[in-house]
Order: sequence, then structure tokens, then C-alpha cells
Amino acid sequence: MSPPPFERIAIIGIGLIGSSIALAARETGAAGTARLYDTDAGVRARAAELGLGEVCKTVPEAVCDADCVILAVPVGALRAAADAASAHMYDGAILTDVGSVKAEAAAAMAAVTPPHIHLIPGHPIAGTERSGPDAGFASLFDGAWHILTPLDGRAPDPEALERLTAFWTRLGARVETMDPVRHDRVLAITSHLPHLIAFNIVCTAYDMESIDAGEVVKYSAGGFRDFTRIAASDPVMWRDVFLANREAVLETLGRFSEDLAALQRAIRWGDGEALMHEFSRARGIRKAVIEAGQDAPVENFGRNQPRRETD
Amino acid sequence: MSPPPFERIAIIGIGLIGSSIALAARETGAAGTARLYDTDAGVRARAAELGLGEVCKTVPEAVCDADCVILAVPVGALRAAADAASAHMYDGAILTDVGSVKAEAAAAMAAVTPPHIHLIPGHPIAGTERSGPDAGFASLFDGAWHILTPLDGRAPDPEALERLTAFWTRLGARVETMDPVRHDRVLAITSHLPHLIAFNIVCTAYDMESIDAGEVVKYSAGGFRDFTRIAASDPVMWRDVFLANREAVLETLGRFSEDLAALQRAIRWGDGEALMHEFSRARGIRKAVIEAGQDAPVENFGRNQPRRETD
Repeated sequence: MSPPPFERIAIIGIGLIGSSIALAARETGAAGTARLYDTDAGVRARAAELGLGEVCKTVPEAVCDADCVILAVPVGALRAAADAASAHMYDGAILTDVGSVKAEAAAAMAAVTPPHIHLIPGHPIAGTERSGPDAGFASLFDGAWHILTPLDGRAPDPEALERLTAFWTRLGARVETMDPVRHDRVLAITSHLPHLIAFNIVCTAYDMESIDAGEVVKYSAGGFRDFTRIAASDPVMWRDVFLANREAVLETLGRFSEDLAALQRAIRWGDGEALMHEFSRARGIRKAVIEAGQDAPVENFGRNQPRRETD
Repeated sequence: MSPPPFERIAIIGIGLIGSSIALAARETGAAGTARLYDTDAGVRARAAELGLGEVCKTVPEAVCDADCVILAVPVGALRAAADAASAHMYDGAILTDVGSVKAEAAAAMAAVTPPHIHLIPGHPIAGTERSGPDAGFASLFDGAWHILTPLDGRAPDPEALERLTAFWTRLGARVETMDPVRHDRVLAITSHLPHLIAFNIVCTAYDMESIDAGEVVKYSAGGFRDFTRIAASDPVMWRDVFLANREAVLETLGRFSEDLAALQRAIRWGDGEALMHEFSRARGIRKAVIEAGQDAPVENFGRNQPRRETD
């Protein structure tokens, strides 16, 4: 195996992403050693039990000799985490994060990170609906995109950018660089709005007093169950995402609501032609998603798998 | 194997559901023989190539000696199909359907079906995003609910109801009986609204001129891809569903939009507490869906499967 991009890394925040980085770094040899820290003592204890790496009791202990510190905390906690970590990092070490929002959050990190630290914010387009240290697994980043969003007015050192890219590539990711504001606009439609809609429809279903909640669950195979998956995601993480990416989310949500009002009107007036037109447009994008390798080419997410091979 | 609940069945409409019934009936011995008919000559030819059963050129030929005729056509075509089939069925034969809307559609079938035919509408809560005769597979109904909705003022013959129940049970389904109006209200939230929302968000994403459609696809793993699956469903089928279940869908959509407006307001005003409250509520329902056996207990729909067994 080629030498690790980083001899020593530190991971602050041991949830789904933090624990997955620890496992993936060990499996792929992307780091020589990993130290981990979490503000929650129970999480630290569990991480130690799971053998995720060297679990530290304080941030300074975790980060003091790390070549790269990865903040894997909710977006709303990034500023405080960057503040706590960067004060104890050595000159020329790299500080990055995995937050789902970049512009506002990266600026908050930049405000507290001294200039002798190479700050390069990032975001892996990977995750599951589970959270916590037990949720991590080494293959989470296999084939996923990882977006690095260097800051305006704080151009990253080329060598630091190269090493961080090599690290994520070793974890299995495909690395892209993007402007942070553009990142937030793209993710508003590809990730933030879908989660908001999923949270919303699940709550609407719960609250329909004319329908028993048991019936909603019982007949969820009609489509609803697809939405329950992403609505099971970590509430704290998502609260922070919506607060930190407010403008792009509100803009995207406005368009969604306008489009939905048009469908509503078509249903009310029995305009089958308008419905057909919209539904037919939607169909092609699934094909494109699968052709781009962004979803597995199995129908119905592999549920009740067709037994074609035995036919 | 015990004797088939029906010696001879006829399936009108050879799409995902029709072809799956044909394959499942053969595999499970739920019917001695199956005749199939579709208005599309190309579909009939393909069904014959696939060996789905005895493909007929006319409806009378398919249904004339069938013990049970199953209409597997879009809801908007049910009335015409019931008219065409029931005129040639023998006295005391059973006529059923698989339409996703029951009240209005069942009344339309009842209007053209003579009283000597046992009309018992039904709806399997099963499907995939694929359509057409190639999409069918024998295990589609395994463990799925099948809802029978006998009509008011046309109480089904107990023996006919029993045989139809035995047929669907043999195909692997769990059979329930429900009032048609209630069925339509329950399905409006568990199936129709989720599909409408999925169609809508996919179209909104396509139309965002500030975002390249290629970027939407590229970063769809952030959540969007889940929605593209059900938005790939048959547009004709879904147009008919929304037109036939207009009132329940509009009522449910109204509630959804109100709830979404409240979330929008919380985001605009930075009300993190309100967001947390809603998101936390949503989380429990995923667990309930899995505990009820309505989805597989695999995270992320089994994509990038954790290699836990090798850890």
C-alpha cells in the first residue's frame, strides 16, 4: 500500500460520518493513526468500545499533533469546534469539515481559524438515515462525490489541497472543487429540499385525524415508505442545515410550491393533459440518475426482488 | 399443491400488475389457466413471446369461460373494460380490478356490470417504478396487502368473496376488506400524495435555470435520488389516479401545504426549536414502518451496503 496521505488525523465528532471516516481511513490506509473526540462522554465511551481509534478526553489532546483535523459535527457547531481545534493545531496543519452547508458555515470557521492553519472546507455527498458512532461503516464514501469548497480570499495552499484530495480519494470518494455559494444552491435542491419535504409529509400523515397512524404505516408500501427513510435522519443536523442555508432553501422551496400549486390546479380542474405532460417529464431523470452511477439499477430499491435469475 | 381457487382466470391489461398476476398465478398454482388481453397489439405480441399465458385477440375470447376476470388497466379505462368484459362473462363469474382508486372507479364499473356478475373491486398495495409486460415478476405480491372494497348496495356473494380472497392469498398477499371511500382517503396520504410530491420535486429541479440538470443528477445521492424512483412510475396510471381521487387528494394536499408553510416560516425566522420539534416527530415512523414489515430493515435502501459481516 502506498504511504498514507496523512500520518496522523484527528476527527472531532463521532457520529455516522466521523466513525465512517475512522473506519475507512484504517481500512484504506488513508491515515497512519486516528484520534477521535466527541463532546458527549457516552459517545466517546462507545467509540472506544467499538475500537474506532484512539479516543481522547479533550480537543487539544486529539488535535495537537494531527496533520489534518476533520470536524464532523452539526453545521451549527462548526464555529465553536474550529475555534477549539485550531488554537491547538501546529503551524501548517490542515483543518477541514464535512458540513452540508458551506458558505455561511465556512465563513464562521474562517473567522476563528488563524491564518497559519490551512482551512479547506468540504462536504461528502454520502450518508444514511442512521446516526451515532454505531452507524459508521468503512465503505460509506465508496464512489461518492466529495466537494471541497476553498474560501474566497483564503486560497488554499496547493500542497495542502493536494494532500486532502489524496486523503478523500483514498477513502473511495471522487473529489470536486466548487464555489461555496454555488454548492449551497445545488445542495438546496438535491438534498435540503428533499429532506424538508420528507420530514413534512411524514408529519402531515401523522396529524391526519381522519386516518389512523397505524393505517399510514400499514399501507406505506404504496409510496410513503420511501419518504420515511430520509425523514429518519438526524434532527439536529437537519435543523442546522436549514438555518445555515436559509436563503437558498427558501428560494428553492418557493419554486417547489409554485409548481405544486400548478399541479393542484390541474387536478381541481380535471386537466389530465397538464398532469400527463408533467409526469412524463419526470420519468427521464431516474434513467439519468442510474446512468450516472448515482443509484443502483435495481427496481423498487431491491425490495421483493424479482426472482428473474430462476425464471 | 391444493386445487387452484380458480380453474380459469382472464387478465385484461398486460402491464406490470397484469403480467405479475399471470406469473404469480402460474408459480403458486392460484389458477389452472390464464388468458390475457391488452388493447395494444404490440403488448399482446410481447406477452406471447414472454410466455405469460394464452394471449387472446379479443376481450370476449379471453373472458368467455373465465371464473374470474381481473381488470389490470389504468383507472380511467376501468368503466370501458368492465363494460367490454362483463357482457361476455358467464352468470356467477367474478369480476375484479386492481385500480389504485376505488369509490368513483368502482361505481363506474358497477354502472356497466350486470347484476348476475359478482363485482368485487380490489387493490394490491404493490408495484415498482417499471411498467409494461416485461416489468412483471412472480413475487410482486409476496407479503403485500391486498384490499378488497365491496360496494354499498351490492354486497358480494360470500362464496365469491371467499374464492377471490383465496386467490390473492395464494399469490402471497394478505387480504383486507375496506370501505371504498375510506380506502381512497387512506391511499391519498400513503400513496397518491407521495407520488404527486415526487413528480413535482423532480420537475422543479429540472426547471431551476440557475442549476445545471447534470448537477442535479450528479449530486442526487444527497436525497433527491429517492424521489426519482417513484417519479419514474407510469404517467397514464397516475394521471388517472389524481383525476379519479380528486377530492381526497386535494384535501390531503391542502394539509401538506399548510404544514410546509409552517416549516417555511420557521426557516425564515430562524426558529430552530420548531424545526427540531417537527423533525424529531418524523423519526419514529420509519421504525414503525420497518417493525410492521412494510420495508426492509436495511439502511439507505441497501445502497453501498455496510460490510459489517467482515468487520
